[in-house]
Amino acid sequence: MTFSVAVAGASGYAGGELLRILAGHPEFEVRTVTGHSSAGDPLIDHQPHLRSLSHLRLEPTTPEALDGHDLVFFALPHGASGALTARLGEVRLVVDCGADHRLRSDDDWAAFYGGEHHEAWSYGVPELLVRGADGVLEKQREALRGASRIAAPGCNASTVALSLVPGIAAGVIEPTDLVSVLAVGPSGAGKAAKTHLLGAELMGTANPYAVGGSHRHIPEIRQALRDAAAGAAAQDSPTISFTPVLVPMSRGILATSTARLAPGTTPDEVRAAWERAYADEPFVRLLPEGRFPRTADTLGANTCLLGLAVDEAAGRVVVVAALDNLAKGTAGAAIQSANLALGLPEGAGLSVNGVAP
Amino acid sequence: MTFSVAVAGASGYAGGELLRILAGHPEFEVRTVTGHSSAGDPLIDHQPHLRSLSHLRLEPTTPEALDGHDLVFFALPHGASGALTARLGEVRLVVDCGADHRLRSDDDWAAFYGGEHHEAWSYGVPELLVRGADGVLEKQREALRGASRIAAPGCNASTVALSLVPGIAAGVIEPTDLVSVLAVGPSGAGKAAKTHLLGAELMGTANPYAVGGSHRHIPEIRQALRDAAAGAAAQDSPTISFTPVLVPMSRGILATSTARLAPGTTPDEVRAAWERAYADEPFVRLLPEGRFPRTADTLGANTCLLGLAVDEAAGRVVVVAALDNLAKGTAGAAIQSANLALGLPEGAGLSVNGVAP
Amino acid sequence: MTFSVAVAGASGYAGGELLRILAGHPEFEVRTVTGHSSAGDPLIDHQPHLRSLSHLRLEPTTPEALDGHDLVFFALPHGASGALTARLGEVRLVVDCGADHRLRSDDDWAAFYGGEHHEAWSYGVPELLVRGADGVLEKQREALRGASRIAAPGCNASTVALSLVPGIAAGVIEPTDLVSVLAVGPSGAGKAAKTHLLGAELMGTANPYAVGGSHRHIPEIRQALRDAAAGAAAQDSPTISFTPVLVPMSRGILATSTARLAPGTTPDEVRAAWERAYADEPFVRLLPEGRFPRTADTLGANTCLLGLAVDEAAGRVVVVAALDNLAKGTAGAAIQSANLALGLPEGAGLSVNGVAP
Amino acid sequence: MTFSVAVAGASGYAGGELLRILAGHPEFEVRTVTGHSSAGDPLIDHQPHLRSLSHLRLEPTTPEALDGHDLVFFALPHGASGALTARLGEVRLVVDCGADHRLRSDDDWAAFYGGEHHEAWSYGVPELLVRGADGVLEKQREALRGASRIAAPGCNASTVALSLVPGIAAGVIEPTDLVSVLAVGPSGAGKAAKTHLLGAELMGTANPYAVGGSHRHIPEIRQALRDAAAGAAAQDSPTISFTPVLVPMSRGILATSTARLAPGTTPDEVRAAWERAYADEPFVRLLPEGRFPRTADTLGANTCLLGLAVDEAAGRVVVVAALDNLAKGTAGAAIQSANLALGLPEGAGLSVNGVAP
Repeated sequence: MTFSVAVAGASGYAGGELLRILAGHPEFEVRTVTGHSSAGDPLIDHQPHLRSLSHLRLEPTTPEALDGHDLVFFALPHGASGALTARLGEVRLVVDCGADHRLRSDDDWAAFYGGEHHEAWSYGVPELLVRGADGVLEKQREALRGASRIAAPGCNASTVALSLVPGIAAGVIEPTDLVSVLAVGPSGAGKAAKTHLLGAELMGTANPYAVGGSHRHIPEIRQALRDAAAGAAAQDSPTISFTPVLVPMSRGILATSTARLAPGTTPDEVRAAWERAYADEPFVRLLPEGRFPRTADTLGANTCLLGLAVDEAAGRVVVVAALDNLAKGTAGAAIQSANLALGLPEGAGLSVNGVAP
Repeated sequence: MTFSVAVAGASGYAGGELLRILAGHPEFEVRTVTGHSSAGDPLIDHQPHLRSLSHLRLEPTTPEALDGHDLVFFALPHGASGALTARLGEVRLVVDCGADHRLRSDDDWAAFYGGEHHEAWSYGVPELLVRGADGVLEKQREALRGASRIAAPGCNASTVALSLVPGIAAGVIEPTDLVSVLAVGPSGAGKAAKTHLLGAELMGTANPYAVGGSHRHIPEIRQALRDAAAGAAAQDSPTISFTPVLVPMSRGILATSTARLAPGTTPDEVRAAWERAYADEPFVRLLPEGRFPRTADTLGANTCLLGLAVDEAAGRVVVVAALDNLAKGTAGAAIQSANLALGLPEGAGLSVNGVAP
Repeated sequence: MTFSVAVAGASGYAGGELLRILAGHPEFEVRTVTGHSSAGDPLIDHQPHLRSLSHLRLEPTTPEALDGHDLVFFALPHGASGALTARLGEVRLVVDCGADHRLRSDDDWAAFYGGEHHEAWSYGVPELLVRGADGVLEKQREALRGASRIAAPGCNASTVALSLVPGIAAGVIEPTDLVSVLAVGPSGAGKAAKTHLLGAELMGTANPYAVGGSHRHIPEIRQALRDAAAGAAAQDSPTISFTPVLVPMSRGILATSTARLAPGTTPDEVRAAWERAYADEPFVRLLPEGRFPRTADTLGANTCLLGLAVDEAAGRVVVVAALDNLAKGTAGAAIQSANLALGLPEGAGLSVNGVAP
Repeated sequence: MTFSVAVAGASGYAGGELLRILAGHPEFEVRTVTGHSSAGDPLIDHQPHLRSLSHLRLEPTTPEALDGHDLVFFALPHGASGALTARLGEVRLVVDCGADHRLRSDDDWAAFYGGEHHEAWSYGVPELLVRGADGVLEKQREALRGASRIAAPGCNASTVALSLVPGIAAGVIEPTDLVSVLAVGPSGAGKAAKTHLLGAELMGTANPYAVGGSHRHIPEIRQALRDAAAGAAAQDSPTISFTPVLVPMSRGILATSTARLAPGTTPDEVRAAWERAYADEPFVRLLPEGRFPRTADTLGANTCLLGLAVDEAAGRVVVVAALDNLAKGTAGAAIQSANLALGLPEGAGLSVNGVAP
């Protein structure tokens, strides 16, 4: 069976990556692409790398253009999908790559985004450990099976959550005083023209931003960590210092996350927690001891690679995670989640192999 | 008065940067340059950017080539300068850009380097706060005035030490459980041909290395932090999780360092500690609140720029520091220290302005 | 039917790209990978981006390791495949990504390579126009159907040949006094550690090499141009000034090729020549007037994109071609040619879409 | 004597580079900086690398702000300086880094720029050979001595003119059918936010633009070539195919220019033409045979490096030139020319050494 698909926001970076993966998906057929200022243009003018979709033309982003498809992907600025959803007709599955439907807490939304807060949808990171109502750990994929509304994750948020959740779920690291520093490429900042994102400003230099706790992915990370922690006390405790640094690569996130070792924990117990969590996951892999990932190895792939070290002198576990912010970080996660929701093989259309060097 | 200068290891990256700065120094004249496998070659073949020194030819790195100069800079692999120094004749001032003379602790040397441990020389970071025998804070520059032997710092080490020492000296951050993650360019890894440092391996990707506490700059950082801490208990306490990440820029270090707020400290007290430390320093500058540096702003300059935020939700102070690993991180620090040792204006030959964009 | 495949030289860049594409090929199964200094290692240690092939281990590159496969790809330094081929047993199809079997002329081989010259194999650029014995133009793919020995092209050579051959074949440009300047990424220079290919040497800079007519792809270009030219006089006439420039991108070739307009030719006739040549080619596309390609649009794809302008003031046609040197430039061409040789759909396992941004 | 200086357009890239060099100039003191949308801001907010000028604040770009200085530099969009000049009061020397005063031909201006054409000023490339009224070759610096109005060159134009003029002046290359292809960094395109100049669009890729003869620097190149050519016939003959390609480096131009060998010319005669032209020039250097420059070697320097090869098989001379588009290409040329105009040492404040790696 072929599902008909529409992508709203198809001229941007997330939209382009959705289309790139969708173009190779055996069960999905992209029938409609929409844009805002780009409406009316051939898609190929905005996504010149997508040769196989050169027959498509961008339509305006309206409910009418999207209604009637089996599957709609939103790749819109935050605030846009919430409003649009309310006006959508019958759509079997909506996957939002924006932030509107990620957070459950009104307070978090108010503090980090502002404006109207929309309901939270199923969070699109299948490999995340979450603790069910009965306190038993399971994978987030269970919540995605058969879902009709999915919130794809923030790319930085899922990278850090995948890095730290196994240790928190197993109790081998402390859930407070976490520290993450991320080297990130500028495609995550979108395609809108801004002086500080010009090539001349970003080549040959590293630029920190949102320093000191203001990045919007922080509440999303804390929500994921809480969902995995055990015990009532843990429910509101995770704290994290989070600093992203723009570096000169168009794509990629290299997140270095550290956490204090839980008292009395051995290095073997630490490693075992991550091994257990991801042993059967094709798209999230723990590298052998002493190996650490680089973003190039995940370029274009739906893969998150993790390396782990226990620094006993510092009393901290260090987890280094690499993924492609547009692929596994956004569009790949969205399509993997859609596969689950629609009962397709979870990896349909998705590659584990990166494009390197 | 003009001082005659020799640079040993002149065909490498640190040697090249020493020469670039020395070429514009009003009181220094480079008379001798030496190399190992490059001996016999015109300097310009190895440093084609140094047009004003195209008259120089590389000699073998021997005591005979270096003796008799007022000032000798070593830019050699670690292990080489210690042996060479013992065979040097009369030289007014030796500045070593390698590691041999940085560490006071035999144990640290054995654990991180191995082989023969040489005596520690005056540490070449003039702006560092250090606590004198009487417990009173002063600047490291006092120890450099009139010195005859100087150990220029490790580039990562001085970046982190300059980032954290003011808070530790003032007691506004805790000296334990520090976390530093650095985005660094590959010129810090030297000019020897290695597969993992090829352009194709490093462009478009972020690559962590020495993860988990094995980097050789860690004991050097801890030594500098101890030297600033107050009280007997503090002398051996600093612990730091330290992770460098290679990113695609030839030069530069962007260090994100975080520390737990000391209990009862206000954000204003935190900022005041760094403001006091660097108020009169031309080469180490704290940016205004809400501003953070990028490495491009320090390219080729003898400048370390700092940005500071207090993340109260995370309970951590975040300090972001940018410098050019070859300039302020190595050669600039060496020359600034030499100026002090020889009674010259501290900033002679050094620029505060970077080359950007 | 599944063909069993071996890749010799699997730890290098061309070998890695062959494997990346082969891993997604519906009819090929990689059973053997070989290396030289890497023999004995898990493949994943050398190609950490190829997660789906992590079960493979590198064997020594010997005839015994390669014999018995349906299909053997060579990704070896030039000189190696010629010798190895003589010792191979029964292999249905051998595709050589090295230079040993590309040139028909002994003189060209002696002048640009030296050493033993091996027989020329079918040239693996299916879209090239070639003039048959009867003087009628056809595509090179005809020579590849059913072939048992194929020489994949040099990446720069095929880029320039695809750029200029349509005009020469149609007689709308002059075949002499051609000029090509190429911006190329360093992955084309291979994975051997060399100082001038270090990241610090190549980031933030453009470096020309092989200036003045010494590049080894020049005779290969001239051979392709001759094969398309009409008339006896044309057979030895093509001359080309060819200059490659290393630029800071790991992959990609952006070739700007210019040729003098043939007297009396109109701009429309010029454009028509390229339109005719590539109208039905999925992997070589002429962009609309006023559009020019960038390498990013071809990253990881088996696509060569061309843009064309007629500069009447200068009296020259300008053709700009973009492709991925490892994909369409090497491994993609090899696999596309293998598909033809084995009677498979020509595009099996190959994507037209690049990974951008 | 100290000259008081104003820089109009100080928040952009050319303005920033003027200020960086001026900050180290022994005879110039920057008293006024102006901007348009940035007026009112501290300069350091727009040029965070210029620490030594952090006391300056941007004023609006008006005649009043500029009048009364000894020296005014314009770093404005084309069209702006022409209008502003008419309203200026007494200023000893005006140097325009824009295009308004470069072209003598009204037709060229109309064809490539449009709008009002202003008078041509002395062209700010001191090392260019020009043929005087008597047909005798001299250097352009003679026209700059004592000048009161100077047009700094277009960065691409001066790179190509310096590359080709010696051969044309000496008659060893033909002045027609020249071909130049340039790898250029995006800082030359300015600091205005445009989607196609975003970091994500330019990293990891090569992007051609203005293909086919539309680049505005073409008439400027042809004018310089005509000024050096001998004989009446030569005066309107130079033709050039000119293609710039954006590559991922923030600064730099690597121009590969080729020209047909004049009939009967030997390789030695060719090389001698360039050697003669630049033998005594500190800022324009011909590298030894077999050596070619890279842009890194000129970063931040007032140096243009040339490499030359004679490709006898192709019948062409190939000249590769490297310079920093903002330094020697714009601001350095402007300041070098100002030195000449004011009777200062020509190299005052200018460095021949680049910042590399």
